[in-house]
Amino acid sequence: MNYRNVLSILGIVLFAEGILLSIPLLISVIMHDDCILAFGVTALSAIVIGLALSFARKKTSDLTAKDGFIICGLSWIILSLFGALPFFISGHVSSFTDALFETVSGFTTTGSSVISDVEALTKSLLFWRSFTHWIGGMGVLVFILAVLPLSQSRTMHLMKAEVPGPKVGKLVSKLRFTAQILYAIYIVLTIVEVILLLVGGMPFFDAVVNSFATAGTGGFAIKNASIAAYNSAYVDGVITVFMILFGINFNLYYLLLMRDIKSVLKNRELHVYLGIIVLATAIIAADIYSTYSSVADALRYSSFQVASIITTTGFATADFNQWSNFSKTILVVLMFIGSCAGSTGGGIKVSRIMILIRNSMREIKRMIMPRAVMSVKIDGKPIDNDTISGAHSYLCIYLLIFCASVIILSADCFDLTTNFTSVAACLNNIGPGLSMVGPTGNYAAFSDISKIVLIFDMLAGRLEIFPILMLFNLSAWKK
Amino acid sequence: MNYRNVLSILGIVLFAEGILLSIPLLISVIMHDDCILAFGVTALSAIVIGLALSFARKKTSDLTAKDGFIICGLSWIILSLFGALPFFISGHVSSFTDALFETVSGFTTTGSSVISDVEALTKSLLFWRSFTHWIGGMGVLVFILAVLPLSQSRTMHLMKAEVPGPKVGKLVSKLRFTAQILYAIYIVLTIVEVILLLVGGMPFFDAVVNSFATAGTGGFAIKNASIAAYNSAYVDGVITVFMILFGINFNLYYLLLMRDIKSVLKNRELHVYLGIIVLATAIIAADIYSTYSSVADALRYSSFQVASIITTTGFATADFNQWSNFSKTILVVLMFIGSCAGSTGGGIKVSRIMILIRNSMREIKRMIMPRAVMSVKIDGKPIDNDTISGAHSYLCIYLLIFCASVIILSADCFDLTTNFTSVAACLNNIGPGLSMVGPTGNYAAFSDISKIVLIFDMLAGRLEIFPILMLFNLSAWKK
Repeated sequence: MNYRNVLSILGIVLFAEGILLSIPLLISVIMHDDCILAFGVTALSAIVIGLALSFARKKTSDLTAKDGFIICGLSWIILSLFGALPFFISGHVSSFTDALFETVSGFTTTGSSVISDVEALTKSLLFWRSFTHWIGGMGVLVFILAVLPLSQSRTMHLMKAEVPGPKVGKLVSKLRFTAQILYAIYIVLTIVEVILLLVGGMPFFDAVVNSFATAGTGGFAIKNASIAAYNSAYVDGVITVFMILFGINFNLYYLLLMRDIKSVLKNRELHVYLGIIVLATAIIAADIYSTYSSVADALRYSSFQVASIITTTGFATADFNQWSNFSKTILVVLMFIGSCAGSTGGGIKVSRIMILIRNSMREIKRMIMPRAVMSVKIDGKPIDNDTISGAHSYLCIYLLIFCASVIILSADCFDLTTNFTSVAACLNNIGPGLSMVGPTGNYAAFSDISKIVLIFDMLAGRLEIFPILMLFNLSAWKK
Repeated sequence: MNYRNVLSILGIVLFAEGILLSIPLLISVIMHDDCILAFGVTALSAIVIGLALSFARKKTSDLTAKDGFIICGLSWIILSLFGALPFFISGHVSSFTDALFETVSGFTTTGSSVISDVEALTKSLLFWRSFTHWIGGMGVLVFILAVLPLSQSRTMHLMKAEVPGPKVGKLVSKLRFTAQILYAIYIVLTIVEVILLLVGGMPFFDAVVNSFATAGTGGFAIKNASIAAYNSAYVDGVITVFMILFGINFNLYYLLLMRDIKSVLKNRELHVYLGIIVLATAIIAADIYSTYSSVADALRYSSFQVASIITTTGFATADFNQWSNFSKTILVVLMFIGSCAGSTGGGIKVSRIMILIRNSMREIKRMIMPRAVMSVKIDGKPIDNDTISGAHSYLCIYLLIFCASVIILSADCFDLTTNFTSVAACLNNIGPGLSMVGPTGNYAAFSDISKIVLIFDMLAGRLEIFPILMLFNLSAWKK
């Protein structure tokens, strides 16, 4: 590993976080709240340490795939450690583990919370909490790539390590422009959502932070009742649509900009993703119809919750923990499916599941016709064997981490549904689970060990496991 | 597909079942119970129809791999349909779905029951119920292979389709002898268990049927309290040891007979299997120690339940549904691991999990060193790519069937733990799950649709999915 170059990029990441922290610092100053010192100290130390580290770079060397993974894993850990400081220093969160849990949950766009009364937080902390969703949604390394002129070979490995999905495509030949295009689409979509929420009468601050949480498919709310607090069908509708939009592969928006509507309409992952949403919404609406007064309400609540879970956002307008076991089971299955590759959402990803299923179908056909040569195709293009075996190893390690996490959590002796859905919610970056961690509950009651396991799960889920696992691989640390 | 040859083998299978049914018929006659007619009619019709079908064979053609799967899937369905008749005709089980559930649960060595008071059944029915475990454990096609002189190419495909595990090895060059050796080991081990149980003072009938249920890793008990009814540490100990023995790859017993003790001691699957049993027993014993009076009792109950679950037998000496969530979670994880390949047990199988994990480790290493050539090795032998991709497709389809089954079951609106563990218990051929289907519960309350789903799961689990899936593949039915 090239230590100096790795340190220099970590320095840039930390410096960028310092700059981003100045926004909540400004809010803190304007509001005269008790977080000025906390944000000031954190921002300043991030900028100073970041700047110092950034000079470590040696000019004449490139990054390998291994370095890309290590940088990605370390960046997210450093971001989270510094990002947790304002919660801890201000005294609003008394345990550092809790502060770290909240921050990792923010950056990884999970939205699981250990804070039972979020309305007691200052506006600056609420802003920072939701802003971490927005930063983490598109990815901090993608951001760095968009603003800094780095060499082509450095960038591809960093991008591959951070962008979710079984395959990473470049939109244009220069990766820097790809990153810029992605961020431009992200910013425009976020602004449109803010405007639409303002039109619905939502206060400016709320519109901005809720849009951050939607855009990153995060799910931190600034009201204890989450989005239900606004009690508005219009707000519910806007957020439902935008959750679904942010769960779509951003490459498709680029194709739309290029007026390649045909490719967008033919995209199989999009069909499956939207198909699952429509089907799940219809089934759950039929199931919960008796609880709500009208078909419209049943559809409103079912579509919101379905979109919130499959896109792994985690906002709530209804306490689905009270729904029937049938509806709850469908939501749990949606938790694992997740959104499209190349979106801001988490989960296993629709396209990865499609690859796994089509490959299994091929294997069954091969049993009947052992000599036939068949390839797995998505959108008419054959998927190469490396992508298929990558999806398989992903699934295997995902299941291993899942089982190990559930076992460790069960030592806290909460019920099986709580443990199972806590891990599902954190590893898939959703937020709420069922039972104790349902939409009206939170993660505060878990032991510190369980919280650290869930922090690991959230990071492993957002970075799709490998960058985080790589940190534990001693041979990856060799010079 | 070669319809005539397929029909002829199905005929032989049915004929064999008719002969086997004459044993419970004899018991029924001796005991003068109300099942003479039921067994008589079933045995006679199986023999007559089986004999008629068996003449369909054309001499000059061989079976393909596809035919092997189809024959295997159909054999098990026909066996179950006829095997259910005695329960239904005698009136002891009033619904045919329930009778079929019980019979499939028997043949697949699952041991899930819909009968709440088994002590009310006649001895002949209890014998038949446990005998199905013994027949299904080693496999009915393996039995046919052992007794009939079929051509070499026919036999391999049949054997591959029925024997569990990622790879099927021949013990000797002639498959017929391999089948005979396997059955000989099976019979000897069963007889040794019967003798040891008789020594412990168990009545002869009980010793025989409990040995059948242990040998097949089935788990049907003839007492409502399962093995706990004997209230004997000696009986618990004998059955614990034999459950573990029947969960070991039978090839190892052959190696022992050949005095190749070195290969047995070096077998990695055996190490992992025994290691998991020891570890899980120790952890659960420590956890339940406070409930039981002594270390000996804690070990007695934990080792029995661990052996019963990992070997997928499903006997119970303690209501583990009352244990802590920690112990319950470990048991649930054991449910999925299952026993060794080539044993009579179910589950995903230890060796298949080893292949999946080692392959994932290799993929991670390949990320660091993309150009290195590495192979996955078990016992020093490289595993070929077909076996690895077979294990992957198995896992994917397994998970798909699992999710779909849980969703369908959830429509009955029992709790999530009941649905999740019901599917886990049936797909892994265990028997009891948690909550409503715990050791003191049963499957009677499920709707017929759920029962049919669980019947499918039990068959898919026992035959390792592909033979059953192949029945739904239209192209497999082509001439």
